Amino acid sequence: MKLSKYLINTLKESPKEATIISHKLLLRASMIKQHSSGIYIWLPLGFKVLKNIEKIIRENQEQIGCHELLMPTIQSADLWKKSGRYEDYGKEMLRIQDRHKNELLYGPTNEEVITDFFNDYVNSYKNLPKYLYHIQWKFRDEIRPRFGVMRGREFLMKDAYSFDLTKEDSFLTYKIFFKSYLKTFIDLGLQPIPVKAESGAIGGDLSHEFQILANTGESEIAYDSKLTSDNLLNLSFDEINSLYSASDDLIDKNKKDVVIGRGIEVGHIFYFGTKYSSPLKANVLTQEGKNVEVHMGSYGIGVSRLVGAVIEAYHDEKGITWPFKIAPFKINIIALEELIDNEEIKKLYLSLLKKYKDIIFDDRDISIGKKIKDSELIGIPWTIIAGKNFKEFNKLELVNRSNNQSITLSVSDLEKFDYEKNFY
Amino acid sequence: MKLSKYLINTLKESPKEATIISHKLLLRASMIKQHSSGIYIWLPLGFKVLKNIEKIIRENQEQIGCHELLMPTIQSADLWKKSGRYEDYGKEMLRIQDRHKNELLYGPTNEEVITDFFNDYVNSYKNLPKYLYHIQWKFRDEIRPRFGVMRGREFLMKDAYSFDLTKEDSFLTYKIFFKSYLKTFIDLGLQPIPVKAESGAIGGDLSHEFQILANTGESEIAYDSKLTSDNLLNLSFDEINSLYSASDDLIDKNKKDVVIGRGIEVGHIFYFGTKYSSPLKANVLTQEGKNVEVHMGSYGIGVSRLVGAVIEAYHDEKGITWPFKIAPFKINIIALEELIDNEEIKKLYLSLLKKYKDIIFDDRDISIGKKIKDSELIGIPWTIIAGKNFKEFNKLELVNRSNNQSITLSVSDLEKFDYEKNFY
Repeated sequence: MKLSKYLINTLKESPKEATIISHKLLLRASMIKQHSSGIYIWLPLGFKVLKNIEKIIRENQEQIGCHELLMPTIQSADLWKKSGRYEDYGKEMLRIQDRHKNELLYGPTNEEVITDFFNDYVNSYKNLPKYLYHIQWKFRDEIRPRFGVMRGREFLMKDAYSFDLTKEDSFLTYKIFFKSYLKTFIDLGLQPIPVKAESGAIGGDLSHEFQILANTGESEIAYDSKLTSDNLLNLSFDEINSLYSASDDLIDKNKKDVVIGRGIEVGHIFYFGTKYSSPLKANVLTQEGKNVEVHMGSYGIGVSRLVGAVIEAYHDEKGITWPFKIAPFKINIIALEELIDNEEIKKLYLSLLKKYKDIIFDDRDISIGKKIKDSELIGIPWTIIAGKNFKEFNKLELVNRSNNQSITLSVSDLEKFDYEKNFY
Repeated sequence: MKLSKYLINTLKESPKEATIISHKLLLRASMIKQHSSGIYIWLPLGFKVLKNIEKIIRENQEQIGCHELLMPTIQSADLWKKSGRYEDYGKEMLRIQDRHKNELLYGPTNEEVITDFFNDYVNSYKNLPKYLYHIQWKFRDEIRPRFGVMRGREFLMKDAYSFDLTKEDSFLTYKIFFKSYLKTFIDLGLQPIPVKAESGAIGGDLSHEFQILANTGESEIAYDSKLTSDNLLNLSFDEINSLYSASDDLIDKNKKDVVIGRGIEVGHIFYFGTKYSSPLKANVLTQEGKNVEVHMGSYGIGVSRLVGAVIEAYHDEKGITWPFKIAPFKINIIALEELIDNEEIKKLYLSLLKKYKDIIFDDRDISIGKKIKDSELIGIPWTIIAGKNFKEFNKLELVNRSNNQSITLSVSDLEKFDYEKNFY
């Protein structure tokens, strides 16, 4: 991508509306723009980040046999009356009347819709277990939207829902999703900490939050240090679940040998049994011909929230320091004005473009210093600088954004370099 | 994909709610399910079709340097008051009040939002032309939603918007999008017919619809037969535009040597000059330092509507006959019950899966006759049947869904067969 053709307009100062670092950096890096309170436009750079996160989540859901469908954003109020949550949800639910005075709402979550759908669609134990997910925009009419995409009103979530014949089967499913969530966050380049949780408004009796550590995190968390070990994924669910973890009010202040930190919730999973299948009549026939209510779980990841959360965890005084897989572009090539049309540099750009696809060549008509600052602000993992060294010795500078260290390499070295493996 | 694990539940009869063939087949093939009037759940099969269409549209937009961003579904009413369209839109606009009594709406289109955004973001001739697009859900509160996804209330569209310095530049841009639209529909496996149009509610003075032919089409169209020639893309915009085309009331009944047919509108492009840049003050500085209003165009494709439109054009008495690239799965392997665990068949499945990714193995516990019927209904381009011939002579039957013709082949022939090239 030649940057002169792209939509980018970085800001030196952050707009007053932003109070937390991720919000400031998203605005300054021209990744999002507020449309109205708690509602954002995702600019090309921010949209690419969102899509990169979606892709990794999607791959992990498919791996456990979870199938993607898509529920609408606008739901009928009827189902919520049946489940008993229509009044409970209070003013956070965006209630709508259509031209015929039918009561609709912008879905804040989808348990009702999926349970009703399942009820119409599956009716035998033979079709269980069934895992379904979707990635869709939701709306919660927060009284005071703030923190940018961390607590917006229109936000993107991945919700998965599981349907099992028995409580025991549902627990096995829960464990599959639990492990898949750990892997998903690790694939995203993050360090997830599973924290035992109360299940709150969704209801039920088994629940975990997935938190990522950030000094600016909204919750205090206390956890066994083994939860951040490299081999966490070799442990079974039961082994991991036996390790201590708690957040905020649930923390046992007398507990010793625990790490205390601050976290941001990026995922939440629930087993809630027949809480929805019972009022919404989602039954199946057993092998013996008995009609039973299915056992359900739900599994959420805040996709748009993750964009903010990752920045809270990955930034320095210069800007964002994206994990490689999430970064909107992987490599940025910056050259002195007199080198912008250099054939060797162009060749390098094209060969890297072929290999990594998401490569920028910053050909804008601005100073090289401003280009470097923008690259740091946006958080491109690698910057290749063709400066005086190139003119004199045919060498370029390669800068790693995660530690701001640089090495000097030739064009052919740069073509061979493994940018993904060598990051961090 | 082993079909026993998938979410599929085909229907013999079509539900009463459906009156047109695409709606009937989408419901019968378990691709969509109505959630409430004009609002649908996209089941895994239908969702895959939607994604396949999106992918081809996206690739074509990127090819002309159109960059993807994402505007929200919920918009502030203020901008619509500025543009003067808030009242005009009437009851089709879903109007919403939030908890603070702010006036919001579910976007039926995005000219206002993108123009306002552009105004904040771009301010020099140096950054022009700029082409931006998004693929997002929209809502139009139709008085009588019908025809399934062809005229739903919540629907998916690709909208692109262009910004140019002058009317002349904007016309050049219009021609680029025009040609790109022809290519997009051809890439989707369709035969597009560009029809000169009135620009209606969007406003402006240059506009084309893109129609696909279907006996059940909503519009009558009359066009020069050269518009359906194979080498249409070798012609220039001006050459194409000089050929006769018109729809409905605009048709000149005295015109001779034209083809008369019925069409379904799947895309619509507009040049509308300064209609929005003027009230919403989207100006840029020229090279001479003069402040001028930008010239705009918009370019829409009905993504969810296309799913229905394609079925109207591609079906027979047995079901859907998807073009290869749009089909949710490309090949379906069906075997006699006693052959389901056959090693050679499994090997064939895995080797095709590796090559084409979207392959089904129908391992459900139902008769082979029912499996063939389902495959025809869903419209999988190729069905491979391992029946008695396999047991006796090691031969399988390969059926082409587009013409229902079959040939007999060995496993190794089937592995080598080019399923994409040989379709149709």
